[in-house]
Amino acid sequence: MKAYKDLDRAELEQLHEGLLKEYAAWKEMGLSLNMARGKPSDEQLQISKGMMTILGDVDLVAADGTDVRNYGVLDGIPEAKRLMGDLMGVKASQTIIFGNSSLNAMYDTVARAYMFGIMGSVPWCRLDHVKFLCPVPGYDRHFGIISQFGFEMIPIPMNEDGPDMDLVEKYVNHDPYVKGIWCVPLYSNPTGIVYSDETVRRFARLKPAAKDFRIFWDNAYAIHHLYPGKEMKLLNIMDECEKAGNPDIVYQFASTSKITFPGSGIAAISASENNIKDILSHLIWQTIGYDKINQFRHVRFFGDIEGMRRHMVRHADILRPKFDGILDLFDQELKDLGIAEWTRPYGGYFISFDAMEGCAKKIVSKCREAGVVMTAAGATFPNGVDPKDSNIRIAPSFPPLDEIITAAKLFITCVKLVTVEKLLEK
Amino acid sequence: MKAYKDLDRAELEQLHEGLLKEYAAWKEMGLSLNMARGKPSDEQLQISKGMMTILGDVDLVAADGTDVRNYGVLDGIPEAKRLMGDLMGVKASQTIIFGNSSLNAMYDTVARAYMFGIMGSVPWCRLDHVKFLCPVPGYDRHFGIISQFGFEMIPIPMNEDGPDMDLVEKYVNHDPYVKGIWCVPLYSNPTGIVYSDETVRRFARLKPAAKDFRIFWDNAYAIHHLYPGKEMKLLNIMDECEKAGNPDIVYQFASTSKITFPGSGIAAISASENNIKDILSHLIWQTIGYDKINQFRHVRFFGDIEGMRRHMVRHADILRPKFDGILDLFDQELKDLGIAEWTRPYGGYFISFDAMEGCAKKIVSKCREAGVVMTAAGATFPNGVDPKDSNIRIAPSFPPLDEIITAAKLFITCVKLVTVEKLLEK
Repeated sequence: MKAYKDLDRAELEQLHEGLLKEYAAWKEMGLSLNMARGKPSDEQLQISKGMMTILGDVDLVAADGTDVRNYGVLDGIPEAKRLMGDLMGVKASQTIIFGNSSLNAMYDTVARAYMFGIMGSVPWCRLDHVKFLCPVPGYDRHFGIISQFGFEMIPIPMNEDGPDMDLVEKYVNHDPYVKGIWCVPLYSNPTGIVYSDETVRRFARLKPAAKDFRIFWDNAYAIHHLYPGKEMKLLNIMDECEKAGNPDIVYQFASTSKITFPGSGIAAISASENNIKDILSHLIWQTIGYDKINQFRHVRFFGDIEGMRRHMVRHADILRPKFDGILDLFDQELKDLGIAEWTRPYGGYFISFDAMEGCAKKIVSKCREAGVVMTAAGATFPNGVDPKDSNIRIAPSFPPLDEIITAAKLFITCVKLVTVEKLLEK
Repeated sequence: MKAYKDLDRAELEQLHEGLLKEYAAWKEMGLSLNMARGKPSDEQLQISKGMMTILGDVDLVAADGTDVRNYGVLDGIPEAKRLMGDLMGVKASQTIIFGNSSLNAMYDTVARAYMFGIMGSVPWCRLDHVKFLCPVPGYDRHFGIISQFGFEMIPIPMNEDGPDMDLVEKYVNHDPYVKGIWCVPLYSNPTGIVYSDETVRRFARLKPAAKDFRIFWDNAYAIHHLYPGKEMKLLNIMDECEKAGNPDIVYQFASTSKITFPGSGIAAISASENNIKDILSHLIWQTIGYDKINQFRHVRFFGDIEGMRRHMVRHADILRPKFDGILDLFDQELKDLGIAEWTRPYGGYFISFDAMEGCAKKIVSKCREAGVVMTAAGATFPNGVDPKDSNIRIAPSFPPLDEIITAAKLFITCVKLVTVEKLLEK
């Protein structure tokens, strides 16, 4: 296959004609597939089925004697704090178990800072201006929280080893209005990249101009590896912050949404003991406690973090062929054409695809027209605007393998078609 | 028995001596009982045991085809909205299912108004002054939310048919800083009183000076009757507001915390469709959705509102002897003495006890010294200060019947002892 840039106009026109036919054939198939959201598939949900009945013949009493069926316990039962602490690489005492969603825990954490401030600082609602750094491409719902609060979003380019740390340091260390940064440090959403040790250390060594600056460390894919034996390692941010004399600078988030059931898992925050104390001093007015039965259900289902890791291998076995299938197709069909780049992640839920500039929206729209829903182009950028209109987030998890392959083939046709049309415009 | 006021000093002194001995004997018993919180007992929790396994052999698909195990559905699955809507006497479309706690839903509702305003009004965090009306005695955690936000709390005396509505109207209709009022309209916490039809209608007909004034209608005990056949009826606030041309004035809250499991139930808000739309426009940034598996678990366990009502009869059968036991003792031991008044509730979780002025703290403290923990005196008032130091909230639900009777006897001794000491001071 020749690279598209080496084709002359006549060749491009001929190609276009073929692609139009191909696309028309796709449309006739009447597909209805969804690659928009990082949702586990039915097959994945099945492996947690045992949770439904695991509390059938069990004394519903936590390790400290708490009746998990009744009121009480603001920060979570001890064994759930241990389990989620292990997941995040922190002590149980640095962990609070939240409700069913880490997104909700993140939103509430921003809301708490907005309403009451952090560890005695001025509430953000009293400030003229609040800025958040947003590595791009990134997770649309992180940006959504920030836009809801009306904060300024400053895009930070992502490199292969994490966000552009020169830029991060420039902002954080000099601008007191910069109050936070969103990070998905392991198998980043959507690029799949992993922050290097150096990146993590530079985060830990930040010298924020604002004492209420926090790193929002969304460790969403902490144990969500795709290739057993090739697990990527992430340096422990809390340890590094501690070493750097910066223990209070980070809030870490995690959940079991993609381990057990999305929306019916348990979420957790970990942070320094100062931060934990600060959070609890406000949380005590918000709730008497989160769902302890569901915490207990998780603990009984997994036993410990090793049980959870074994469970994740089963997820990987289901997900891996989907990622491999798409990536192999991209290699076969697109690699030589010089019209796109994409990531080959070792974990997480996404493939990040960069089309030729100005093509992403059209590709997504052509896919939709033929029955395949992709994440909206631009969604991975603040305010939904990708300045290059190039990035597309691919979520291979939800449809069954054969459908994913079909959808990927259609996607490839759309990429080629839109790119050729773009080239013909010139 | 003679009323204490008719005793002369010598008689009081003799009585005092006897009571001191009686109290000393109590202390020697080394009791450890808790009547502080409205917590269901183990026996009550047992009747919901079936919930633990009810989803074992069930297709986990909601009425609208939603897979309840996966992401999605911001406002709750249709059948849960129906069930909780029926509980509150509203349409499913006027209902949002929240997480595990109506307290959390109330807090978040205040927080939302604070951060973003209500239906386009100025966010409360931008105002110099916000006031809430707090019927007293009332629920300490309602007041806690308000104190966390730094709002002014205006106590409103409770009459036998609800809050003093002349005062409520005076404040709400004339002061634009008055933004809310807390109500537990049925089996009020702690008095057990029920708002009369006239009270509900006067609420519905309020003409608030602030267009973002809302009634926080905490229908916590909507179906929590103690005496089958003697259920008290509460007029439907939403219907009355609608009729009065005031459909947006109220947020209603409920939960299954005292129906199934405290902390593992489901909570709900109901409100006008304008309010629902307003809430969802913010909620969409806070979460992808609450725990649908637990929603489904509740729906399957009860079937419908009639199933839930039948379940509540079983709760009543467990609770009733505890209430009756305490109230009968009060009648026998205290009625003729003229030193206290108390309520005889037809539902809910509390007995409200008014001791002689200046005695409540001492009574609670004497009980604690002898091993029985009561709700802190004053807790039922804003900022924990009962100006008369008279009200004590009694929560008979948690301990087994025999222990409740023991605790009530000790309590009676303490009431008599503290009262006599008070009288001897004069």
